[in-house]
Amino acid sequence: GKKVLIVYAHQEPKSLNGSLKRVAVEELSKQGCSVTVSDLYAMQFEPRATRNDIVGCLHNSEEFNYGMETWEAYKRGGLSDDLIEEQKKVQEADLLIFQFPLYWFSMPAIMKGWMDRVLVQGFAHEFPNCYDSGLLKNKLALFSFTTGGSKEMYAKGGISGDIRYLLWPMQHGIMHFCGVKVLAPHICFAPEYVSEEKREEMLIAWSQRLKTLWKEEPINCSPEWYFK
Amino acid sequence: GKKVLIVYAHQEPKSLNGSLKRVAVEELSKQGCSVTVSDLYAMQFEPRATRNDIVGCLHNSEEFNYGMETWEAYKRGGLSDDLIEEQKKVQEADLLIFQFPLYWFSMPAIMKGWMDRVLVQGFAHEFPNCYDSGLLKNKLALFSFTTGGSKEMYAKGGISGDIRYLLWPMQHGIMHFCGVKVLAPHICFAPEYVSEEKREEMLIAWSQRLKTLWKEEPINCSPEWYFK
Repeated sequence: GKKVLIVYAHQEPKSLNGSLKRVAVEELSKQGCSVTVSDLYAMQFEPRATRNDIVGCLHNSEEFNYGMETWEAYKRGGLSDDLIEEQKKVQEADLLIFQFPLYWFSMPAIMKGWMDRVLVQGFAHEFPNCYDSGLLKNKLALFSFTTGGSKEMYAKGGISGDIRYLLWPMQHGIMHFCGVKVLAPHICFAPEYVSEEKREEMLIAWSQRLKTLWKEEPINCSPEWYFK
Repeated sequence: GKKVLIVYAHQEPKSLNGSLKRVAVEELSKQGCSVTVSDLYAMQFEPRATRNDIVGCLHNSEEFNYGMETWEAYKRGGLSDDLIEEQKKVQEADLLIFQFPLYWFSMPAIMKGWMDRVLVQGFAHEFPNCYDSGLLKNKLALFSFTTGGSKEMYAKGGISGDIRYLLWPMQHGIMHFCGVKVLAPHICFAPEYVSEEKREEMLIAWSQRLKTLWKEEPINCSPEWYFK
Protein backbone atom coordinates (compact mmCIF):
# COMPACT_ATOMS: atom_id res chain seq x y z
CA GLY A 1 0.00 0.00 0.00
CA LYS A 2 1.06 3.56 -0.70
CA LYS A 3 1.86 5.99 2.08
CA VAL A 4 0.19 9.38 2.22
CA LEU A 5 0.88 12.37 4.44
CA ILE A 6 -1.89 14.96 4.67
CA VAL A 7 -0.66 18.30 5.98
CA TYR A 8 -3.85 19.97 7.11
CA ALA A 9 -4.38 23.56 8.24
CA HIS A 10 -7.85 24.47 9.40
CA GLN A 11 -8.99 25.43 12.88
CA GLU A 12 -12.45 23.87 12.58
CA PRO A 13 -13.15 20.15 12.05
CA LYS A 14 -16.67 21.01 10.82
CA SER A 15 -15.33 23.22 8.02
CA LEU A 16 -15.29 22.13 4.39
CA ASN A 17 -11.52 21.77 4.71
CA GLY A 18 -12.10 19.45 7.65
CA SER A 19 -14.52 17.40 5.56
CA LEU A 20 -12.17 17.29 2.58
CA LYS A 21 -9.44 16.00 4.87
CA ARG A 22 -11.77 13.35 6.34
CA VAL A 23 -12.93 12.25 2.90
CA ALA A 24 -9.31 11.82 1.81
CA VAL A 25 -8.42 9.77 4.89
CA GLU A 26 -11.45 7.53 4.31
CA GLU A 27 -11.04 7.03 0.59
CA LEU A 28 -7.28 6.47 0.68
CA SER A 29 -7.53 4.10 3.66
CA LYS A 30 -10.21 2.15 1.80
CA GLN A 31 -7.69 1.74 -1.04
CA GLY A 32 -5.22 0.20 1.39
CA CYS A 33 -3.03 3.27 1.71
CA SER A 34 -1.48 4.10 5.04
CA VAL A 35 -2.51 7.69 5.81
CA THR A 36 -0.91 10.06 8.31
CA VAL A 37 -2.32 13.50 9.10
CA SER A 38 -0.37 16.46 10.43
CA ASP A 39 -3.19 18.58 11.84
CA LEU A 40 -1.18 21.76 12.25
CA TYR A 41 -3.55 23.84 14.39
CA ALA A 42 -4.37 20.88 16.64
CA MET A 43 -0.63 20.28 17.03
CA GLN A 44 -0.13 23.99 17.70
CA PHE A 45 2.63 23.68 15.14
CA GLU A 46 5.29 26.37 15.52
CA PRO A 47 5.59 28.45 12.30
CA ARG A 48 8.50 30.68 13.39
CA ALA A 49 11.99 29.84 12.19
CA THR A 50 14.15 30.49 15.24
CA ARG A 51 17.21 29.36 17.16
CA ASN A 52 14.94 26.96 19.07
CA ASP A 53 14.95 24.67 16.03
CA ILE A 54 18.57 23.78 16.75
CA VAL A 55 19.36 21.63 19.78
CA GLY A 56 22.67 22.38 21.45
CA CYS A 57 25.42 24.67 20.25
CA LEU A 58 25.25 26.76 17.12
CA HIS A 59 27.70 26.41 14.27
CA ASN A 60 28.19 30.20 14.33
CA SER A 61 26.83 31.82 17.45
CA GLU A 62 28.23 35.21 16.45
CA GLU A 63 25.77 35.73 13.62
CA PHE A 64 22.68 33.56 13.43
CA ASN A 65 21.93 32.23 9.95
CA TYR A 66 18.82 30.03 10.00
CA GLY A 67 19.48 28.21 6.72
CA MET A 68 23.08 27.45 7.64
CA GLU A 69 22.30 26.40 11.21
CA THR A 70 19.45 24.05 10.31
CA TRP A 71 21.58 22.49 7.56
CA GLU A 72 24.40 21.85 10.04
CA ALA A 73 21.96 20.66 12.70
CA TYR A 74 20.30 18.28 10.23
CA LYS A 75 23.64 16.69 9.39
CA ARG A 76 24.49 16.03 13.04
CA GLY A 77 20.93 15.02 14.02
CA GLY A 78 20.47 18.19 16.04
CA LEU A 79 17.14 19.53 14.83
CA SER A 80 14.30 19.94 17.32
CA ASP A 81 12.03 16.94 17.88
CA ASP A 82 8.99 18.40 16.12
CA LEU A 83 11.02 18.86 12.92
CA ILE A 84 12.55 15.39 13.05
CA GLU A 85 9.05 13.98 13.49
CA GLU A 86 7.70 15.83 10.44
CA GLN A 87 10.72 14.91 8.33
CA LYS A 88 10.17 11.25 9.18
CA LYS A 89 6.59 11.50 7.95
CA VAL A 90 7.72 13.18 4.72
CA GLN A 91 10.48 10.65 4.18
CA GLU A 92 8.05 7.75 4.41
CA ALA A 93 5.35 9.29 2.23
CA ASP A 94 4.77 8.57 -1.45
CA LEU A 95 2.27 11.42 -1.66
CA LEU A 96 1.95 14.70 0.23
CA ILE A 97 -1.49 16.33 0.24
CA PHE A 98 -1.70 19.91 1.47
CA GLN A 99 -5.25 20.76 2.57
CA PHE A 100 -5.97 24.39 3.49
CA PRO A 101 -8.07 27.47 2.89
CA LEU A 102 -6.31 30.00 0.65
CA TYR A 103 -5.15 32.96 2.76
CA TRP A 104 -3.91 35.94 0.77
CA PHE A 105 -3.13 34.08 -2.47
CA SER A 106 -1.10 31.52 -0.53
CA MET A 107 -1.20 29.04 2.31
CA PRO A 108 -1.94 30.04 5.92
CA ALA A 109 1.16 31.09 7.90
CA ILE A 110 1.03 27.94 10.01
CA MET A 111 1.50 25.84 6.85
CA LYS A 112 4.12 28.20 5.43
CA GLY A 113 5.97 27.67 8.69
CA TRP A 114 5.82 23.93 8.10
CA MET A 115 7.53 24.48 4.71
CA ASP A 116 10.08 26.93 6.14
CA ARG A 117 11.07 24.66 9.03
CA VAL A 118 10.65 21.08 7.78
CA LEU A 119 12.16 21.27 4.29
CA VAL A 120 15.68 22.16 5.40
CA GLN A 121 18.80 21.93 3.30
CA GLY A 122 20.37 18.49 3.54
CA PHE A 123 16.95 16.88 3.95
CA ALA A 124 14.88 18.23 1.06
CA HIS A 125 17.54 19.75 -1.20
CA GLU A 126 21.27 20.33 -1.21
CA PHE A 127 22.79 22.30 -4.03
CA PRO A 128 23.10 21.22 -6.83
CA ASN A 129 20.37 18.72 -5.89
CA CYS A 130 17.37 20.92 -6.49
CA TYR A 131 14.45 20.92 -8.93
CA ASP A 132 14.48 17.67 -10.92
CA SER A 133 17.27 16.27 -8.77
CA GLY A 134 15.86 17.54 -5.45
CA LEU A 135 16.26 15.13 -2.56
CA LEU A 136 12.52 14.35 -2.34
CA LYS A 137 12.27 13.07 -5.89
CA ASN A 138 10.01 10.04 -6.45
CA LYS A 139 7.37 11.67 -4.26
CA LEU A 140 4.16 13.35 -5.36
CA ALA A 141 2.45 16.45 -3.98
CA LEU A 142 -1.06 17.79 -4.39
CA PHE A 143 -2.37 21.16 -3.21
CA SER A 144 -6.04 20.91 -2.25
CA PHE A 145 -7.60 24.17 -1.12
CA THR A 146 -10.68 26.31 -0.80
CA THR A 147 -10.96 29.95 -1.87
CA GLY A 148 -12.94 32.99 -0.78
CA GLY A 149 -13.17 34.35 -4.32
CA SER A 150 -15.22 32.80 -7.09
CA LYS A 151 -14.00 30.89 -10.13
CA GLU A 152 -14.79 33.95 -12.26
CA MET A 153 -12.56 36.20 -10.14
CA TYR A 154 -9.74 33.67 -10.55
CA ALA A 155 -10.14 33.28 -14.31
CA LYS A 156 -7.66 34.62 -16.82
CA GLY A 157 -8.65 38.26 -17.20
CA GLY A 158 -10.58 38.08 -13.90
CA ILE A 159 -9.86 40.65 -11.20
CA SER A 160 -7.72 38.21 -9.20
CA GLY A 161 -5.96 36.74 -12.24
CA ASP A 162 -5.67 33.11 -13.29
CA ILE A 163 -5.55 30.91 -10.19
CA ARG A 164 -2.47 29.23 -11.66
CA TYR A 165 -0.47 32.45 -11.17
CA LEU A 166 -0.57 32.01 -7.42
CA LEU A 167 0.36 28.32 -7.57
CA TRP A 168 3.83 29.10 -8.90
CA PRO A 169 5.54 29.78 -5.53
CA MET A 170 3.92 26.78 -3.85
CA GLN A 171 4.12 24.16 -6.59
CA HIS A 172 7.28 25.22 -8.41
CA GLY A 173 9.11 27.24 -5.77
CA ILE A 174 8.69 24.70 -2.98
CA MET A 175 7.67 21.23 -4.19
CA HIS A 176 9.42 21.16 -7.56
CA PHE A 177 12.51 22.72 -5.97
CA CYS A 178 12.67 19.69 -3.65
CA GLY A 179 12.26 17.29 -6.60
CA VAL A 180 8.64 16.44 -5.78
CA LYS A 181 6.36 15.89 -8.76
CA VAL A 182 3.17 17.89 -8.67
CA LEU A 183 -0.31 16.57 -9.41
CA ALA A 184 -2.98 19.00 -10.62
CA PRO A 185 -4.33 21.11 -7.76
CA HIS A 186 -7.78 20.43 -6.37
CA ILE A 187 -9.67 23.67 -5.87
CA CYS A 188 -13.06 24.27 -4.26
CA PHE A 189 -14.08 27.79 -5.20
CA ALA A 190 -15.98 29.95 -2.72
CA PRO A 191 -17.62 27.19 -0.66
CA GLU A 192 -18.95 29.80 1.78
CA TYR A 193 -21.17 31.25 -0.93
CA VAL A 194 -22.79 28.09 -2.27
CA SER A 195 -25.57 25.83 -1.00
CA GLU A 196 -25.08 22.90 1.35
CA GLU A 197 -25.94 20.69 -1.61
CA LYS A 198 -23.13 22.17 -3.71
CA ARG A 199 -20.69 21.67 -0.86
CA GLU A 200 -21.76 18.05 -0.68
CA GLU A 201 -21.01 17.74 -4.40
CA MET A 202 -17.55 19.18 -3.76
CA LEU A 203 -16.85 16.39 -1.28
CA ILE A 204 -18.07 13.75 -3.69
CA ALA A 205 -15.95 15.16 -6.51
CA TRP A 206 -12.84 14.99 -4.30
CA SER A 207 -13.61 11.44 -3.26
CA GLN A 208 -14.15 10.48 -6.91
CA ARG A 209 -10.88 12.01 -7.98
CA LEU A 210 -8.99 10.15 -5.27
CA LYS A 211 -10.27 6.81 -6.62
CA THR A 212 -8.07 7.15 -9.70
CA LEU A 213 -5.41 9.44 -8.28
CA TRP A 214 -2.57 6.94 -8.64
CA LYS A 215 -3.13 6.79 -12.37
CA GLU A 216 -2.70 10.55 -12.81
CA GLU A 217 0.31 12.03 -14.55
CA PRO A 218 2.06 14.96 -12.83
CA ILE A 219 1.73 18.39 -14.43
CA ASN A 220 4.58 19.82 -16.43
CA CYS A 221 5.79 22.18 -13.71
CA SER A 222 7.32 24.88 -15.93
CA PRO A 223 6.36 28.52 -16.62
CA GLU A 224 4.17 27.43 -19.55
CA TRP A 225 1.74 25.61 -17.26
CA TYR A 226 1.31 28.71 -15.11
CA PHE A 227 1.53 31.73 -17.35
CA LYS A 228 0.62 30.78 -20.91
CA GLY B 1 6.78 64.52 7.67
CA LYS B 2 5.64 61.22 6.16
CA LYS B 3 5.00 58.20 8.32
CA VAL B 4 6.65 54.88 7.55
CA LEU B 5 6.08 51.44 9.03
CA ILE B 6 8.85 48.90 8.47
CA VAL B 7 7.66 45.34 9.01
CA TYR B 8 10.89 43.46 9.53
CA ALA B 9 11.47 39.71 9.73
CA HIS B 10 15.00 38.56 10.44
CA GLN B 11 16.33 36.80 13.52
CA GLU B 12 19.79 38.40 13.40
CA PRO B 13 20.47 42.14 13.73
CA LYS B 14 23.91 41.65 12.12
CA SER B 15 22.39 40.17 8.95
CA LEU B 16 22.14 42.09 5.70
CA ASN B 17 18.40 42.35 6.32
CA GLY B 18 19.18 43.90 9.69
CA SER B 19 21.49 46.40 8.02
CA LEU B 20 18.96 47.20 5.30
CA LYS B 21 16.38 47.90 7.99
CA ARG B 22 18.80 50.12 9.90
CA VAL B 23 19.76 52.03 6.76
CA ALA B 24 16.10 52.68 6.03
CA VAL B 25 15.41 53.93 9.55
CA GLU B 26 18.42 56.25 9.34
CA GLU B 27 17.80 57.64 5.88
CA LEU B 28 14.04 58.14 6.32
CA SER B 29 14.49 59.71 9.76
CA LYS B 30 17.05 62.08 8.27
CA GLN B 31 14.39 63.14 5.76
CA GLY B 32 12.06 64.03 8.64
CA CYS B 33 9.87 60.96 8.33
CA SER B 34 8.53 59.34 11.45
CA VAL B 35 9.57 55.69 11.27
CA THR B 36 8.11 52.77 13.22
CA VAL B 37 9.55 49.26 13.09
CA SER B 38 7.65 46.06 13.79
CA ASP B 39 10.54 43.68 14.49
CA LEU B 40 8.53 40.47 14.23
CA TYR B 41 11.01 37.96 15.68
CA ALA B 42 11.98 40.31 18.51
CA MET B 43 8.26 40.77 19.27
CA GLN B 44 7.78 36.99 19.04
CA PHE B 45 4.88 37.89 16.81
CA GLU B 46 2.23 35.16 16.69
CA PRO B 47 1.74 33.91 13.08
CA ARG B 48 -1.12 31.46 13.75
CA ALA B 49 -4.68 32.54 13.00
CA THR B 50 -6.66 31.16 15.94
CA ARG B 51 -9.58 31.78 18.23
CA ASN B 52 -7.20 33.66 20.54
CA ASP B 53 -7.37 36.62 18.15
CA ILE B 54 -10.94 37.27 19.26
CA VAL B 55 -11.55 38.64 22.76
CA GLY B 56 -14.76 37.48 24.40
CA CYS B 57 -17.58 35.53 22.84
CA LEU B 58 -17.61 34.26 19.30
CA HIS B 59 -20.23 35.27 16.77
CA ASN B 60 -20.73 31.58 15.95
CA SER B 61 -19.19 29.26 18.50
CA GLU B 62 -20.69 26.17 16.80
CA GLU B 63 -18.41 26.38 13.81
CA PHE B 64 -15.29 28.55 13.95
CA ASN B 65 -14.74 30.69 10.84
CA TYR B 66 -11.62 32.83 11.25
CA GLY B 67 -12.46 35.38 8.55
CA MET B 68 -16.00 35.89 9.83
CA GLU B 69 -15.00 36.05 13.49
CA THR B 70 -12.19 38.55 13.00
CA TRP B 71 -14.46 40.71 10.85
CA GLU B 72 -17.14 40.73 13.56
CA ALA B 73 -14.54 41.26 16.29
CA TYR B 74 -13.01 44.17 14.37
CA LYS B 75 -16.38 45.90 14.14
CA ARG B 76 -17.01 45.65 17.89
CA GLY B 77 -13.41 46.43 18.87
CA GLY B 78 -12.85 42.87 20.03
CA LEU B 79 -9.60 41.87 18.35
CA SER B 80 -6.63 40.90 20.49
CA ASP B 81 -4.30 43.70 21.61
CA ASP B 82 -1.38 42.73 19.39
CA LEU B 83 -3.59 43.03 16.29
CA ILE B 84 -5.09 46.37 17.35
CA GLU B 85 -1.56 47.65 17.89
CA GLU B 86 -0.40 46.59 14.42
CA GLN B 87 -3.53 47.96 12.77
CA LYS B 88 -2.91 51.32 14.44
CA LYS B 89 0.59 51.41 12.98
CA VAL B 90 -0.74 50.54 9.50
CA GLN B 91 -3.51 53.11 9.74
CA GLU B 92 -1.06 55.89 10.52
CA ALA B 93 1.50 54.93 7.88
CA ASP B 94 1.87 56.51 4.46
CA LEU B 95 4.33 53.81 3.42
CA LEU B 96 4.76 50.18 4.45
CA ILE B 97 8.17 48.62 3.87
CA PHE B 98 8.43 44.85 4.21
CA GLN B 99 12.02 43.79 4.86
CA PHE B 100 12.78 40.06 4.83
CA PRO B 101 14.83 37.21 3.39
CA LEU B 102 12.92 35.29 0.71
CA TYR B 103 11.87 31.90 2.12
CA TRP B 104 10.50 29.47 -0.44
CA PHE B 105 9.54 32.04 -3.09
CA SER B 106 7.64 34.04 -0.48
CA MET B 107 7.92 35.79 2.87
CA PRO B 108 8.86 33.95 6.08
CA ALA B 109 5.89 32.44 7.92
CA ILE B 110 6.15 35.00 10.71
CA MET B 111 5.51 37.77 8.19
CA LYS B 112 2.79 35.81 6.39
CA GLY B 113 1.14 35.55 9.79
CA TRP B 114 1.29 39.32 10.10
CA MET B 115 -0.62 39.58 6.79
CA ASP B 116 -3.11 36.84 7.73
CA ARG B 117 -3.91 38.34 11.13
CA VAL B 118 -3.54 42.13 10.77
CA LEU B 119 -5.24 42.75 7.42
CA VAL B 120 -8.70 41.62 8.49
CA GLN B 121 -11.93 42.31 6.69
CA GLY B 122 -13.46 45.57 7.85
CA PHE B 123 -10.01 47.05 8.42
CA ALA B 124 -8.13 46.46 5.16
CA HIS B 125 -10.93 45.49 2.77
CA GLU B 126 -14.66 44.93 2.85
CA PHE B 127 -16.37 43.68 -0.25
CA PRO B 128 -16.84 45.38 -2.68
CA ASN B 129 -14.04 47.60 -1.36
CA CYS B 130 -11.10 45.66 -2.64
CA TYR B 131 -8.32 46.25 -5.16
CA ASP B 132 -8.45 49.89 -6.32
CA SER B 133 -11.10 50.70 -3.73
CA GLY B 134 -9.51 48.68 -0.91
CA LEU B 135 -9.70 50.34 2.50
CA LEU B 136 -5.96 51.06 2.67
CA LYS B 137 -5.90 53.16 -0.47
CA ASN B 138 -3.65 56.23 -0.43
CA LYS B 139 -0.92 54.16 1.14
CA LEU B 140 2.21 52.81 -0.51
CA ALA B 141 4.00 49.49 -0.02
CA LEU B 142 7.46 48.30 -0.93
CA PHE B 143 8.82 44.76 -0.68
CA SER B 144 12.53 44.80 0.11
CA PHE B 145 14.14 41.38 0.32
CA THR B 146 17.22 39.25 -0.06
CA THR B 147 17.39 35.99 -1.98
CA GLY B 148 19.41 32.80 -1.77
CA GLY B 149 19.41 32.32 -5.53
CA SER B 150 21.31 34.49 -7.97
CA LYS B 151 19.92 37.07 -10.39
CA GLU B 152 20.57 34.61 -13.23
CA MET B 153 18.47 31.91 -11.59
CA TYR B 154 15.64 34.44 -11.20
CA ALA B 155 15.80 35.71 -14.78
CA LYS B 156 13.18 35.00 -17.40
CA GLY B 157 14.13 31.56 -18.69
CA GLY B 158 16.25 30.95 -15.58
CA ILE B 159 15.67 27.83 -13.53
CA SER B 160 13.67 29.69 -10.87
CA GLY B 161 11.76 31.82 -13.36
CA ASP B 162 11.41 35.61 -13.50
CA ILE B 163 11.51 36.99 -9.95
CA ARG B 164 8.36 38.95 -10.81
CA TYR B 165 6.37 35.70 -10.97
CA LEU B 166 6.69 35.23 -7.25
CA LEU B 167 5.79 38.83 -6.47
CA TRP B 168 2.23 38.38 -7.71
CA PRO B 169 0.73 36.90 -4.53
CA MET B 170 2.46 39.41 -2.28
CA GLN B 171 2.10 42.61 -4.29
CA HIS B 172 -1.16 41.99 -6.12
CA GLY B 173 -2.86 39.40 -3.93
CA ILE B 174 -2.23 41.20 -0.65
CA MET B 175 -1.27 44.85 -1.07
CA HIS B 176 -3.22 45.72 -4.20
CA PHE B 177 -6.22 43.81 -2.85
CA CYS B 178 -6.22 46.20 0.13
CA GLY B 179 -5.97 49.23 -2.18
CA VAL B 180 -2.30 49.88 -1.39
CA LYS B 181 -0.20 51.15 -4.28
CA VAL B 182 2.99 49.21 -4.84
CA LEU B 183 6.43 50.69 -5.46
CA ALA B 184 8.99 48.64 -7.40
CA PRO B 185 10.50 45.93 -5.19
CA HIS B 186 14.03 46.26 -3.86
CA ILE B 187 15.93 43.03 -4.29
CA CYS B 188 19.40 42.07 -3.06
CA PHE B 189 20.34 38.89 -4.87
CA ALA B 190 22.37 36.21 -3.10
CA PRO B 191 24.15 38.41 -0.54
CA GLU B 192 25.60 35.31 1.12
CA TYR B 193 27.64 34.56 -1.97
CA VAL B 194 29.21 37.97 -2.62
CA SER B 195 32.06 39.87 -1.02
CA GLU B 196 31.74 42.15 2.00
CA GLU B 197 32.40 45.02 -0.40
CA LYS B 198 29.47 44.05 -2.63
CA ARG B 199 27.21 43.83 0.41
CA GLU B 200 28.33 47.32 1.39
CA GLU B 201 27.36 48.50 -2.10
CA MET B 202 23.94 46.93 -1.63
CA LEU B 203 23.41 49.04 1.49
CA ILE B 204 24.51 52.19 -0.29
CA ALA B 205 22.21 51.48 -3.24
CA TRP B 206 19.24 51.10 -0.87
CA SER B 207 20.09 54.30 0.94
CA GLN B 208 20.41 56.12 -2.39
CA ARG B 209 17.08 54.84 -3.60
CA LEU B 210 15.37 56.00 -0.42
CA LYS B 211 16.59 59.56 -1.01
CA THR B 212 14.22 59.97 -3.94
CA LEU B 213 11.62 57.38 -2.96
CA TRP B 214 8.78 59.87 -2.55
CA LYS B 215 9.12 60.91 -6.18
CA GLU B 216 8.64 57.36 -7.46
CA GLU B 217 5.51 56.33 -9.31
CA PRO B 218 3.86 53.06 -8.24
CA ILE B 219 4.08 50.12 -10.63
CA ASN B 220 1.09 49.18 -12.74
CA CYS B 221 0.03 46.24 -10.61
CA SER B 222 -1.64 44.14 -13.31
CA PRO B 223 -0.75 40.77 -14.89
CA GLU B 224 1.27 42.54 -17.63
CA TRP B 225 3.85 43.77 -15.11
CA TYR B 226 4.37 40.26 -13.78
CA PHE B 227 4.00 37.86 -16.67
CA LYS B 228 4.71 39.62 -19.94
